[in-house]
Amino acid sequence: MSHSLIVRQDIDFLLHDWLGLDDIADRTTVDAVIDLSEKLAIDHFLPHYKQADVEEPTLTADGVHICPPIGEALKHYADLGLFSAGFPEELGGLGLPYLACAASFAYFAAANLATSAYPMLTVANARLIATFGTQAQIRHFAIPQIEGRWFGTMCLSEPQAGSSLADVRTRAEADGQDDLGDRYRLVGNKMWISGGDQDVSQNIVHLVLAKVAGRGEALPVGTEGLSLFIVPKYLPDGTRNDIEVAGLNHKMGYRGTANCLLNLGETTGAIGWIVGQPGQGLRQMFQMMNEARISVGLGAAAVGYRGYRLSVAYANERLQGRPAGVRDGPQVPISAHSDVRRMLLAQKAYVEGALALCLYSARLVDDESDADSASLLGLLTPITKTWPSEYGLAANDIAIQIHGGYGYTRDFDVEQLWRDNRLNPIHEGTTGIQAADLLGRKILRDGTGMIVLEARIATTVERAAAVEDLAAHGVALSAAWVRVRDIAAQLGAGDAGHLFDNATPYLWAFGHVVVGWLWLDQAILASQKCTASDAEAQFLAGKARAARFFFECELPKIDGWLAVVASASMVAAEAPPSTFQ
Amino acid sequence: MSHSLIVRQDIDFLLHDWLGLDDIADRTTVDAVIDLSEKLAIDHFLPHYKQADVEEPTLTADGVHICPPIGEALKHYADLGLFSAGFPEELGGLGLPYLACAASFAYFAAANLATSAYPMLTVANARLIATFGTQAQIRHFAIPQIEGRWFGTMCLSEPQAGSSLADVRTRAEADGQDDLGDRYRLVGNKMWISGGDQDVSQNIVHLVLAKVAGRGEALPVGTEGLSLFIVPKYLPDGTRNDIEVAGLNHKMGYRGTANCLLNLGETTGAIGWIVGQPGQGLRQMFQMMNEARISVGLGAAAVGYRGYRLSVAYANERLQGRPAGVRDGPQVPISAHSDVRRMLLAQKAYVEGALALCLYSARLVDDESDADSASLLGLLTPITKTWPSEYGLAANDIAIQIHGGYGYTRDFDVEQLWRDNRLNPIHEGTTGIQAADLLGRKILRDGTGMIVLEARIATTVERAAAVEDLAAHGVALSAAWVRVRDIAAQLGAGDAGHLFDNATPYLWAFGHVVVGWLWLDQAILASQKCTASDAEAQFLAGKARAARFFFECELPKIDGWLAVVASASMVAAEAPPSTFQ
Repeated sequence: MSHSLIVRQDIDFLLHDWLGLDDIADRTTVDAVIDLSEKLAIDHFLPHYKQADVEEPTLTADGVHICPPIGEALKHYADLGLFSAGFPEELGGLGLPYLACAASFAYFAAANLATSAYPMLTVANARLIATFGTQAQIRHFAIPQIEGRWFGTMCLSEPQAGSSLADVRTRAEADGQDDLGDRYRLVGNKMWISGGDQDVSQNIVHLVLAKVAGRGEALPVGTEGLSLFIVPKYLPDGTRNDIEVAGLNHKMGYRGTANCLLNLGETTGAIGWIVGQPGQGLRQMFQMMNEARISVGLGAAAVGYRGYRLSVAYANERLQGRPAGVRDGPQVPISAHSDVRRMLLAQKAYVEGALALCLYSARLVDDESDADSASLLGLLTPITKTWPSEYGLAANDIAIQIHGGYGYTRDFDVEQLWRDNRLNPIHEGTTGIQAADLLGRKILRDGTGMIVLEARIATTVERAAAVEDLAAHGVALSAAWVRVRDIAAQLGAGDAGHLFDNATPYLWAFGHVVVGWLWLDQAILASQKCTASDAEAQFLAGKARAARFFFECELPKIDGWLAVVASASMVAAEAPPSTFQ
Repeated sequence: MSHSLIVRQDIDFLLHDWLGLDDIADRTTVDAVIDLSEKLAIDHFLPHYKQADVEEPTLTADGVHICPPIGEALKHYADLGLFSAGFPEELGGLGLPYLACAASFAYFAAANLATSAYPMLTVANARLIATFGTQAQIRHFAIPQIEGRWFGTMCLSEPQAGSSLADVRTRAEADGQDDLGDRYRLVGNKMWISGGDQDVSQNIVHLVLAKVAGRGEALPVGTEGLSLFIVPKYLPDGTRNDIEVAGLNHKMGYRGTANCLLNLGETTGAIGWIVGQPGQGLRQMFQMMNEARISVGLGAAAVGYRGYRLSVAYANERLQGRPAGVRDGPQVPISAHSDVRRMLLAQKAYVEGALALCLYSARLVDDESDADSASLLGLLTPITKTWPSEYGLAANDIAIQIHGGYGYTRDFDVEQLWRDNRLNPIHEGTTGIQAADLLGRKILRDGTGMIVLEARIATTVERAAAVEDLAAHGVALSAAWVRVRDIAAQLGAGDAGHLFDNATPYLWAFGHVVVGWLWLDQAILASQKCTASDAEAQFLAGKARAARFFFECELPKIDGWLAVVASASMVAAEAPPSTFQ
């Protein structure tokens, strides 16, 4: 059981029963891909989980070397066609829906988050080029990634420009044209580049945000001055591009993913080809960033999920203590203690809730041509990135607690899961950045997603009203929804200079409302589904119980968070610097 | 500033202005000890913080070796008489109050939690022997520890008996008498022994819980069958006792503290002398456990405190982004962003609140001859252990978030602080164990602490009523107190078999009420104190603001936790095993 990473019944329930994947894909193909993914993840991603944590990437004169089994795992991943699965047939893919690919990815992330980062970035990179690149760019730079021979990165941050992309200083000077498009020479430093170098793929395709300016000209101001460039490690003629690995970042976790500081163009200027037009960089990159944000959430959910399953196994094996009031006789498994059950159920509600959220959003990606789905996806993206990152981590924290002292040792996996997962609230936009995106851009500036979400929540609540055990949850959800909706409107009408003061507690509450909604929606389905076996009945009862836990123990927390938001407290915002010594 | 571990003004405020240390100690002496502690912590504990994380203890044929600077630091600690500071003069000490020693200890724990664990355990061990041992035992085993030449451990857990001490299987067979008392031969395995072996001290005094039984006799049942033994590494004649280090635990953090599995008596039986009478073991050991619980809380608070101060320094230096609405011009320090200020203020409220709680409890130790103080200390011990462990860790999590990607690297200290602190909710009784102690033993069985606490809260609320900005907080605190008090009574009158189902959420709420009370009490003092300088006025304003944050952003959270407690939800307790797959 500890070798089953994610409960297959859960994946089947989510994909087929809940999200209607069968409407857009052939179930036999999907099932085969999931089978394959689970097997490959267990056979080739899981075994080097600890090894790659200990044997960190190294940097020598000829570049970065990563722990060898990572390369072997990714070779298998390529051989089985998993890089290509989500691409259309004309690009050599299987044309699988994004949802199916996300479910496949969850197994790899659960087994080994750091190793799974390479294909995640590669696929997102290739998809961006396939969307915005020229035919020649697609042929030359996307196809080898779809085949898994080349890997991709995203190069946004710089040492002085982390969350503030307007401050990117990498400069791109025009350098003529060729059949790959308008050519530029790039000079700059790119920080936090995951997979920035490695010794596995034949080439690396960097997608680089930079600002177009002639020599001696000032860089354009703001994010609208950003352009996007394809900057390969090896140029089409096989020579090295002018890209130097200046250093490796030594991380607390997630160590198998080589994370680099890259110096571009210190000698001759790094050669890159622009994607689209100058100034479109950030808009295009947002496709990759949004995809990465969903993947971050999904990875966090998957890592939380594995910790949960390890906890279940441990709690059923570890004998300790006796039921209250019993003095003698054999010790019982700790899963018999109600406080341990509370911790198991909290984990279940967190990780299954997080997985459901991520797959729901993945389904919206497949429906993105529909305006409502696109709007809702925009609204849910910051939640899909953040909620699993925070609660997958919280689940991993509980997993350590259930393991007690053993969980604190490196003889068990749960401490590493916790360390690995801690990156997720930081990269691809911190929680604070997501909170500002949610409240400022998605709710108050756009707002269409809120209309769609309100309608969908109303539908769920209406259906819940007809189910005896769930009607009260529907009422609670409705009230919670009205509260977060109205508070956003109130903030929008308030002092613009203080709009974001409590955006993060607002995001916490909004996230809980969204996850509560999805739990209720699943509970309704669980209550209505005809069961084919005892095992299925137990599975559905488990879903119902986790949903009930969420409504009894989690949703009530939003009042505490919203108290400060609703009062527009400036206790922190107005704190003078001398407060902090 | 990053080299000042804990704000000295804060320590002075807490010790002298708030807790009245000057009533029981000479201020000049205390100030000198604190000066010395801060300097020694910075000069000799802090420098090997990272080194001891990387160079873990090793086990060879001649025992455990620890990173050399740890030994050097502890040599200085002994040379300066810090092992002895809290002991009476007749035992070679300075007779300093426990409160002053706790304040001193906070500096060492902040600088290097793992190194500080050795003296913490040694002092607690010596104090137990000084309390319950014979004169000969004190002279032979306590004095060398008070002099810092020998170190001490506490040996409770066994592989099959972690939280369940009733299941200890270490057997002690009577083996005559000598001038050190009744002698026994011990056979058993002791797990998780911090400082179980090392190459620094001349001897190690293990305090071992075991069960007295003749060969072939059944062990006595339950915790009342536990007895306490002094089992030294080296016997009085200089020969090795029969104690073998069977292995080292490889931890996620806290690595400088060698943590061992000890096999006692595999050859001839380990020789030990009983402390007190058979069957008194747990009662006696509780003195050391309670002291260790306060120290765990204090260490967690101190580690959180250092992370907070590192965050403040980083947030004031790191330039990123601009104020909302500003497009151009230089980037500003991230401490200018309201979300970062929220994170700084949350940390301040957590770590200063945690430190205040621990020092308040330390003051109660000094007053323990007073029945009210003793009762209140008993009630507050599980909170003093748990709240700083949970919120010191939460503060460290925020510290990483403020550092962004940098905080996730080992180039900064905050990731290690977070790893180190994660042990604290586990050892010396997990959060779940503390919750059961609070609700079952301290509130419902004893109850006298509740009467004292209610009276003290009432006094604080009454004083707050006279301060314009604080009166409303007093009202909120009163209501919160009545709520936790009444819910405990309700639980006590309910189904005994389900008493502990939601004990942990109850503990969360109770902890917040206690810390809220202490914040309000400090805020009253801050509002009334005459200020001698602008710096002092700013310091006091900071205290007032942190208190306000706690009441606006933290105390409202208790309703969410108590919802499930008050409803006596059995959603987790009644979950059938099939729920968890």
